[in-house]
Amino acid sequence: MRVLVTGGSGLIGRHAVAALVEQGLEVHLVTRQSGASSSLLQGATAHAVDLFDGAAVDRLLDQLRPSHLMHLAWDTTHGFFWQSPNNLDWLAASMRLTRSFVKAGGQRIVGAGTCAEYDWTDPALRTGDCMELGTPLRPHLLYGVAKKSCFETLESYARSADIEFAWGRVFLLYDPLENAKRLVFSLFEAIGAGRRASCTDGRQIRDFMPASEVGRAFASILTSPVNGSINIGSGEPQAIAELAMHIGRLFGRPDLVGLGDLPSRPDDPPRLVPDVRRLFEEVGYRPAITQSLALQAYAQAMA
Amino acid sequence: MRVLVTGGSGLIGRHAVAALVEQGLEVHLVTRQSGASSSLLQGATAHAVDLFDGAAVDRLLDQLRPSHLMHLAWDTTHGFFWQSPNNLDWLAASMRLTRSFVKAGGQRIVGAGTCAEYDWTDPALRTGDCMELGTPLRPHLLYGVAKKSCFETLESYARSADIEFAWGRVFLLYDPLENAKRLVFSLFEAIGAGRRASCTDGRQIRDFMPASEVGRAFASILTSPVNGSINIGSGEPQAIAELAMHIGRLFGRPDLVGLGDLPSRPDDPPRLVPDVRRLFEEVGYRPAITQSLALQAYAQAMA
Repeated sequence: MRVLVTGGSGLIGRHAVAALVEQGLEVHLVTRQSGASSSLLQGATAHAVDLFDGAAVDRLLDQLRPSHLMHLAWDTTHGFFWQSPNNLDWLAASMRLTRSFVKAGGQRIVGAGTCAEYDWTDPALRTGDCMELGTPLRPHLLYGVAKKSCFETLESYARSADIEFAWGRVFLLYDPLENAKRLVFSLFEAIGAGRRASCTDGRQIRDFMPASEVGRAFASILTSPVNGSINIGSGEPQAIAELAMHIGRLFGRPDLVGLGDLPSRPDDPPRLVPDVRRLFEEVGYRPAITQSLALQAYAQAMA
Repeated sequence: MRVLVTGGSGLIGRHAVAALVEQGLEVHLVTRQSGASSSLLQGATAHAVDLFDGAAVDRLLDQLRPSHLMHLAWDTTHGFFWQSPNNLDWLAASMRLTRSFVKAGGQRIVGAGTCAEYDWTDPALRTGDCMELGTPLRPHLLYGVAKKSCFETLESYARSADIEFAWGRVFLLYDPLENAKRLVFSLFEAIGAGRRASCTDGRQIRDFMPASEVGRAFASILTSPVNGSINIGSGEPQAIAELAMHIGRLFGRPDLVGLGDLPSRPDDPPRLVPDVRRLFEEVGYRPAITQSLALQAYAQAMA
């Protein structure tokens, strides 16, 4: 079993690579420049190939002939990716990569989807139910539309080409290396510096997962025989206020959590919670760390 | 107004090009090889560019800077295209072409969709209703899935990039240059040679359109301000048996139409009829010829 990972040096990818290496698999990753490195990538072989260069991708796949492909690469530039025209380029690159992989004898593909593929106006989100796999896919922004197009086309192609295909839908994650404007980072940054962290009322229910666990979930999916779409989440939804207070208490300063300082956004769904039964029951994923430990590690990484 | 047409030498494309030239527009077309020519393409400028070569497409668009793009090119190899892996390549090429077109200042895109994007198991197809634009999009084969992905991604992109986008869904067409295994060609061929043409019972209701009219409909859509999906059809659905008998009578040999010789396919929907109100009422398309004249022209072209 030889695995090629794209986006392997990204927030999720580096943890997926580490989890695959730990399982003793032969892991290769595509990086934009040969310099990219992280201790998490030790034991994997990096290849500097531009995924937008179809001929170069063909050559790499033909040379490596991986049996498994974990395709995580996509533009996720904070604040920009939702409506970025780059989503078209990534959809195109994903199609070409798949063709190259299958031509080179590849057998199983795992791709990265998103909770933004779902219909966030679905009434189930107001009545307390989870986003089940039967929740309608009705994305409102280009990122979700392009990801859904990638999912639907690859799933149909995999059926006709008789290869295996799974699609892990990522919900919310946090990581010390994430963009400084993201919620968890900004909470740590403000409270760690003794400043008040302004929040909404924080009543929105979400399922946050450390990026390391999202990476481990992808590794579990890759080595499982499960096909189709699989929600990736901790299975422990919580109010954003609860998470924020947890971080406040880590620093002994829950008073710095400014719940209600900011108005709620009217388009912010009250619940965005995945049904994770497939991940836990069929794939057999189990978390390695609790949220408490993950947040402690986050604090240490930022110190 | 400068128009670039892809697939301009194809069954539909050559008629679309002729209709655009007739309207006095500056028309350019992309062809696979410089040799491709047809009297219908006179007045248009052909460019031999491989649509899978992103750099070459970029150069062409940058040089031409067309205001309008009519993107008809796709793999439609008879008997092969439904599940062909080439559908992934065409989805990718469509994304890249769109990016190049918009980067070069393009303003309006018209793409070619298919009735295969719709859910053919929709109960409306059994109760006599048309395929309205509200009929669920639930394609069953890769061709329909890839076309739907192209439609949804480009529609979302066009909204975010503030360009115009329309999508003409093609139903059934006939043309003397079509593949010899297609229904109308095989009817003409057999009956014209005095042989019995074996058919099913022919009770399926369809909307057949000459390729010349499909091309004219695309030209009307391009020069209209209408956006979104538009079914392309004659608005005159008929039983396949009726069309077959029409062809039989053209040769004075209705006795050669072997209705019921072949078993009906269980997956063949009883009705596949577009609601064409948008095309006729909003776009303002009007047919140039009747079906009778189109079939007479077909017979002459084959003689």
